[in-house]
Amino acid sequence: MAKASYQDYVRLMHKIADVRNALALLGWDQETYMPPKGAAFRAQQSATLSGISHDLFVAPATGDLLHALLEDQSLDWEQRRNVTLTLEDYDRACCYNTSFVERKSMAVSNAHHAWVGAREANDFGLFRQALEEVVTLTREEATLLGYTGHPYDALLNLYEPGATTAELNVLFADIRRQLVGYVQELGQRTQVSNEFMYRHYPERRQWDFGIELLKEMQYDLEAGRQDISAHPFTTNFSMQDVRVTTRVNEQDLHSMIWGCIHEGGHALYEQGLLPQNYGLPAGEACSLGIHESQSRLWENMVGRSLPYWKRNYPRLQAVFPESLGTVSLDQFYKGINQVNPSLIRTEADELTYHFHIMIRFEIEKSLMDGSLEVRDLPEIWRQRYQEYLGLEVKNDFHGVLQDIHWCHGSIGYFPTYSLGSFYAVQFYNQALKDIPDLEQLTEQGNLLPLRAWLGEKIHRKGRLKTARELCTEITGEPLNAAHFMRYARNKFDAIYNKP
Amino acid sequence: MAKASYQDYVRLMHKIADVRNALALLGWDQETYMPPKGAAFRAQQSATLSGISHDLFVAPATGDLLHALLEDQSLDWEQRRNVTLTLEDYDRACCYNTSFVERKSMAVSNAHHAWVGAREANDFGLFRQALEEVVTLTREEATLLGYTGHPYDALLNLYEPGATTAELNVLFADIRRQLVGYVQELGQRTQVSNEFMYRHYPERRQWDFGIELLKEMQYDLEAGRQDISAHPFTTNFSMQDVRVTTRVNEQDLHSMIWGCIHEGGHALYEQGLLPQNYGLPAGEACSLGIHESQSRLWENMVGRSLPYWKRNYPRLQAVFPESLGTVSLDQFYKGINQVNPSLIRTEADELTYHFHIMIRFEIEKSLMDGSLEVRDLPEIWRQRYQEYLGLEVKNDFHGVLQDIHWCHGSIGYFPTYSLGSFYAVQFYNQALKDIPDLEQLTEQGNLLPLRAWLGEKIHRKGRLKTARELCTEITGEPLNAAHFMRYARNKFDAIYNKP
Repeated sequence: MAKASYQDYVRLMHKIADVRNALALLGWDQETYMPPKGAAFRAQQSATLSGISHDLFVAPATGDLLHALLEDQSLDWEQRRNVTLTLEDYDRACCYNTSFVERKSMAVSNAHHAWVGAREANDFGLFRQALEEVVTLTREEATLLGYTGHPYDALLNLYEPGATTAELNVLFADIRRQLVGYVQELGQRTQVSNEFMYRHYPERRQWDFGIELLKEMQYDLEAGRQDISAHPFTTNFSMQDVRVTTRVNEQDLHSMIWGCIHEGGHALYEQGLLPQNYGLPAGEACSLGIHESQSRLWENMVGRSLPYWKRNYPRLQAVFPESLGTVSLDQFYKGINQVNPSLIRTEADELTYHFHIMIRFEIEKSLMDGSLEVRDLPEIWRQRYQEYLGLEVKNDFHGVLQDIHWCHGSIGYFPTYSLGSFYAVQFYNQALKDIPDLEQLTEQGNLLPLRAWLGEKIHRKGRLKTARELCTEITGEPLNAAHFMRYARNKFDAIYNKP
Repeated sequence: MAKASYQDYVRLMHKIADVRNALALLGWDQETYMPPKGAAFRAQQSATLSGISHDLFVAPATGDLLHALLEDQSLDWEQRRNVTLTLEDYDRACCYNTSFVERKSMAVSNAHHAWVGAREANDFGLFRQALEEVVTLTREEATLLGYTGHPYDALLNLYEPGATTAELNVLFADIRRQLVGYVQELGQRTQVSNEFMYRHYPERRQWDFGIELLKEMQYDLEAGRQDISAHPFTTNFSMQDVRVTTRVNEQDLHSMIWGCIHEGGHALYEQGLLPQNYGLPAGEACSLGIHESQSRLWENMVGRSLPYWKRNYPRLQAVFPESLGTVSLDQFYKGINQVNPSLIRTEADELTYHFHIMIRFEIEKSLMDGSLEVRDLPEIWRQRYQEYLGLEVKNDFHGVLQDIHWCHGSIGYFPTYSLGSFYAVQFYNQALKDIPDLEQLTEQGNLLPLRAWLGEKIHRKGRLKTARELCTEITGEPLNAAHFMRYARNKFDAIYNKP
């Protein structure tokens, strides 16, 4: 009887996961193949499925089942942990009413549509009203969820359980102080050039090369696929159907190469979850920060490293001899690691990237506590980019319209990008200890041991440990951004020869 | 209060349509882009969504609402008709229990997977068990639905409301008698050649030409798209997202050209339904026979006509000069209308096509009344193809494995293909009367008047009229297959010169 009810729980979790995965497919299709006139009914369909999965989950019977299972002494540790985490999710989900969920889903679909149009027209004004609706609903969401400190805490916790605005204030202030000085220092040394990255790179050849990089990473194309979308993303409908998207710019080789590796890193995490945990917390990623640690580790620690390109650069040269034939490996390696303040977050280097995140973090906090309104976004954006990166923002397309996150209603999400970068260094340092010949293996194109190490230490564990527990278990200490700063100085002192 | 409850009805219908359309997207994706390992969880997801839409519909509250609305004197004719049809659907849906719906959805997904594998291996044995499961469930379905005559009637009515096995027995016997004689007669006249259709036609150019044909038909690519699948189909997620698929064979020009036109005809029907009727019977097609009349009308009456190719053949020649440069319009027109018994239904000519349908009709009847078992399918298939078409079936791939329908659980569907062909002639004859210069317009590439005529007479009416009512309203009489036989003799006597 008690055993049977854990099966009831699993069955319910499967049903809810099925609806959520169908919803994810509606989203994938919307951003890849949906014809434009399909948008209005698609918004409604997504809202309906959101409402249905919400209703299924918050039904009083769910709470009764979860509470009853916690009394069941026959559950093992993992079963109990699944139920406990689901109960936490349940209590949070019960903060929302169906009407709110459907209104937010609808607002988000509309905002996505408005954002695409506003980008095409390079006019924030066309996005403003739809974004105001999203921000209003997100403020309402923080209130529904409840918080003790800053209203932004309620949202942060959706993406990074346990994170607080106060802690992030301290972390970002510390990193900012160190990074500002270091980036200035690099600016005074001999500069490196990456002009070769902006030669002509034909689309089809880029695409094929990207697929090769994904295969080399051990991304399983029998359990996934890559398509084109305006903004690259990873999505999954099960552990056995994990899809990535990319974009190809014929005048800029960056976006395809590191887009593929970055999304590939996310995808390996999802493919590394265990199918028997489908629908359960054990079958979900730990946090967005940990998720991002996987994409950043592959993108930066592997994909912007010398051993990786010792192997792959000759292959890249062979694909694009007319553009890279005379560029040496040393020039290439230094060029792809150029540190240079720029306007677009997704094109930023490993260091100045975090200034982009800090700006968004500050704007989001202010939007949530009401000290900033949507209409003032372009102006504050300009001010902050001047102050943090020393750059003039000339238009909305290269400014406040660049990211898709706010139209998705994902306020509180951006900080996880920096957290992920910091976790990535800490995990990779540990991998270097655990796999002594790791860099040699990378140089040989054998990325399987790293993928297996990540799978064993992180992927297969799902959400059963918190980010803090996981990090401590793997590296012996919780997140410590000093690792990131040390890694940065080592790497970039070598690239920008210290005088 | 009464007004409000019609709105309740519309809201419920929207919600159910949203789930069904999400389910349709799961299906579209499965047959176009899903990676192979995604199949198992996809089957489960489809089963779950089937179950949810079923549960939403058959809830007792739905029945109460519908009965209450029928008492509401303020409803206009169309509102009342919508409610009446929904009540018929409801009563039929209540014949099914959730467990049955989920089991059938699961069996169908598994069978699809097995069918793909069996086709690859050219081995019916690999499909047999999965098909047996589907057939067993379909027999159970006939019992659940109930019937007074033949068990097959219960299934026929799912696709062609009002059709009976007894009527079809008479209709097909009559057509068979006339067609057998006429096809034999044609066989004794001077033959036409279509060997030029099997020259080399590069994929990309075929694809582009197919898109041009779809555009010429007025298929709206802003509200649809075309992709590749193993078996061409049309699906829709709203009137504003109606998708077609095709396949391209570089050694055979037929499948792309008439695949595009055929699916385009289906798609125009779905795009011609009115968005304000989303989710309601008024926003659904009348019957599968009427649906097929649209694809057949475009495919055969338009797409295999001389006026159509007077315009389009020079364009086709320009695309494939190396294969068609020396083939005259007259040779082309006669060649594409070659009558020649063949093994594959979808490649059959306009006349012998119906023998393929009769064989499936007889097999399905026997499977349903238990006089035939799945294991005997390859054998009966061979016997019938020998008897009706004079052909030897050499393997399963070109035999019993050729159609996707049974693995979809769609037993009772095939007869609507012949019904559609007969309706198509009757409708097209009427269009020729109502649009006196129709053939000239076709010759000018102006297909808009025909599309508008079909839209006004058929598409926008949805399911509000029965097939019989619709046919009588448009043509002055119910379905009369004599029109088809007369059309056939006129057309093919001209192509196969009468001695």
